Amino acid sequence: MTERTERKDDDHSIFVGGKPFMNYVTGVVMQFTTQNAKEVIVKARGKFISRAVDIAEVVRKRFLENQVELGNIKIDSEEFENKEGRQVRVSTIEISLMRK
Amino acid sequence: MTERTERKDDDHSIFVGGKPFMNYVTGVVMQFTTQNAKEVIVKARGKFISRAVDIAEVVRKRFLENQVELGNIKIDSEEFENKEGRQVRVSTIEISLMRK
Repeated sequence: MTERTERKDDDHSIFVGGKPFMNYVTGVVMQFTTQNAKEVIVKARGKFISRAVDIAEVVRKRFLENQVELGNIKIDSEEFENKEGRQVRVSTIEISLMRK
Repeated sequence: MTERTERKDDDHSIFVGGKPFMNYVTGVVMQFTTQNAKEVIVKARGKFISRAVDIAEVVRKRFLENQVELGNIKIDSEEFENKEGRQVRVSTIEISLMRK
């Protein structure tokens, strides 16, 4: 019998957008340190995908070096109609970071 | 005894930069169709990472639908000193596309 209750992985994710870079880094680090997450998923769409990779790399190589490693990385895309009625495709990424 | 000689995976890769989007898509598609590649690796650094994901997605969902699937996706980063003597980190991605 374990003392703490099990959480679903999806409870620990962060969606990357246009806020300052360090907001996201701190957000991920805090989920590991103060919320005791075993896995945090860094998610992004479109042009923010590059940023999500930067954030994951800075967390695992600098802030939580030797404590966190890369898990699964998923990419996908969704097609939808934009305001002008044109079909547009937007790519997505999900990067899993896991406590070692 | 097989008729054609075995190629290493690394023979089939494409490095994404600032050229027109369709150049890269065509480049990947041609490696599968005219060069008979079994695997093509789409590689990018920094801000071009989002573009690499877009290219991989357009190839697998539109141009080579049902013929190509995602393989392994790797991210990494390198730290180096820029012209001003500051430590800079640049992220990288490698997306594998595989013939079904």
